[in-house]
Amino acid sequence: MGKITTGATTMSLDGYIAGPEESGFDLLFQWYGNGDVEIPSASPDVPPFRVSAASAALIKREWANTGALLVGRHLYDMTNAWGGRHPMDLTTVVLTHRRPDDRPEDDENFVFVTDGIEAAVAKAKELAGEKDVVVNGGQMARQCLEAGLLDEVGVALVPVVLGGGKPLFGELGIAPVQFDGPVAVVEGQGVTHLRYRVKN
Amino acid sequence: MGKITTGATTMSLDGYIAGPEESGFDLLFQWYGNGDVEIPSASPDVPPFRVSAASAALIKREWANTGALLVGRHLYDMTNAWGGRHPMDLTTVVLTHRRPDDRPEDDENFVFVTDGIEAAVAKAKELAGEKDVVVNGGQMARQCLEAGLLDEVGVALVPVVLGGGKPLFGELGIAPVQFDGPVAVVEGQGVTHLRYRVKN
Repeated sequence: MGKITTGATTMSLDGYIAGPEESGFDLLFQWYGNGDVEIPSASPDVPPFRVSAASAALIKREWANTGALLVGRHLYDMTNAWGGRHPMDLTTVVLTHRRPDDRPEDDENFVFVTDGIEAAVAKAKELAGEKDVVVNGGQMARQCLEAGLLDEVGVALVPVVLGGGKPLFGELGIAPVQFDGPVAVVEGQGVTHLRYRVKN
Repeated sequence: MGKITTGATTMSLDGYIAGPEESGFDLLFQWYGNGDVEIPSASPDVPPFRVSAASAALIKREWANTGALLVGRHLYDMTNAWGGRHPMDLTTVVLTHRRPDDRPEDDENFVFVTDGIEAAVAKAKELAGEKDVVVNGGQMARQCLEAGLLDEVGVALVPVVLGGGKPLFGELGIAPVQFDGPVAVVEGQGVTHLRYRVKN
């Protein structure tokens, strides 16, 4: 059985995955381009990543073990559906209140779930098979954590203070929460990869 | 010349040095007692630390190279002046609007500065000589950072989500800010020690 993890969610030192009014992405995602090792992107809108060797080794290993993605409608809209396919080259489950008009049917790129977080996680797990599910977006991570469905928290911690914005877990209703670990620490260039185990 | 650093400021994964209404200290400071290596405390109110070997090696090295402390009045009051002496066994400079009535004169334990952050830093540097100055408290760290007086940010990152509280740099007016590094990463037990260099 794979796990449900936030993957390598990029987070500022003060805990934000986006700055105020969707700002700060240039600073947050600098590590995507500060190295020599290329990681291909399956998205026509997202260029290949060029990261440090340490980051690449970790990311490649984790991507190879990921079988499906789970995101919220906000991230889907904000990225314009990554131009049609997620960079990780996987089927992306989107939790939404209403299916987008331009996508009347599910396909290998996107699957829409409208009946809540548990159904969305179940669908993503089904698609992932024995592999992991990566869940992205603060509200999605929060819902998974609150529902006891999250197994691992993965953070790519970058040396930036944004001063406000969207927290890793949105407005978490069950704080304080303590995790086990870190179970892994990997030093990239301008980024520290941390993995924590959720106590469920 | 020593540097001005936040030392080993304990911070939650979501960026807080205290939870809502001064809560969460039990979770934040668990790493002070989860190991086998004792670090003596000079405070009659603070027990010796018992930390992991990796944390102890770092803390002992840094403490040995620290010559003075700089804190805000809030921390001084909240800790009840650490019972008379800071655990690190150093003179503590306190920035305050008004000197406490019960301390009419400076002594080897506490020195009070009432004319602003630059004077307080100057006093702490004078006391520290060639060694470092550790500055604590979110408002003090913020003031030093905003004034271009901070050289290093040191964080003891713990696997806890507090969901709110006091941010590492309080309400930072100059965000976003980017640091260099991490220049050091040390894995303790239940804590990740990170050191960043401030671009001044």
